[in-house]
Amino acid sequence: MAAYHLSTMFAALADPTRRAILARLATGERSVTELTEPFDMSLPAVSKYLRVLERAGLIARGRAAQSRPCRPEAGPLRKVADWTDGYRAIWEQRCDRFDTYRQQLKAKEKKHGRKQRGE
Amino acid sequence: MAAYHLSTMFAALADPTRRAILARLATGERSVTELTEPFDMSLPAVSKYLRVLERAGLIARGRAAQSRPCRPEAGPLRKVADWTDGYRAIWEQRCDRFDTYRQQLKAKEKKHGRKQRGE
Repeated sequence: MAAYHLSTMFAALADPTRRAILARLATGERSVTELTEPFDMSLPAVSKYLRVLERAGLIARGRAAQSRPCRPEAGPLRKVADWTDGYRAIWEQRCDRFDTYRQQLKAKEKKHGRKQRGE
Repeated sequence: MAAYHLSTMFAALADPTRRAILARLATGERSVTELTEPFDMSLPAVSKYLRVLERAGLIARGRAAQSRPCRPEAGPLRKVADWTDGYRAIWEQRCDRFDTYRQQLKAKEKKHGRKQRGE
């Protein structure tokens, strides 16, 4: 796990086919052969994509010599999620600002309404 | 926003310096000049990193001709976080499995305890 770096993980995720393979594996373990069909790819082509994901630590492969089923690796994927979580504050702060603005607007409208009703 | 793709964003994030610049901007807007100091880099070097982040939609730059301050862009960063959130189920499922196992273990221990006390 320590050997897997964010840069390698992000680089592996920068390809739509690799992300699609990962999404497929999220629904359950699959052998390389099982992955060739939905992606309409040859076995060597799928294997190439899997190798990049495996080297990045994003998937692991079973030991059964024939099928070597692939599954996504929770730990490294969590590392990526933890990184993005660090930036959650940025948009949450923006939402907070928007909420404050909306509340100020509401208060103004209420005040204005009172004035119109002569309160 | 629609023009910013996950692949371009992940590729931009696959570099430690670009991530470090983004982390610096998360604490507040900075001009290119202000970014050269902590990174001990020349202005053209920082500009090059910023261009990649800007093209990926991860940062935006102000219009003030002299400083053009940089800030992180919440929308695209959220898109990356939403993607990783989709995989949260994988490790949460693992934790659930662990919880089930722990509960089963507790139930067993309870049962065993009762037997020992002759209940």
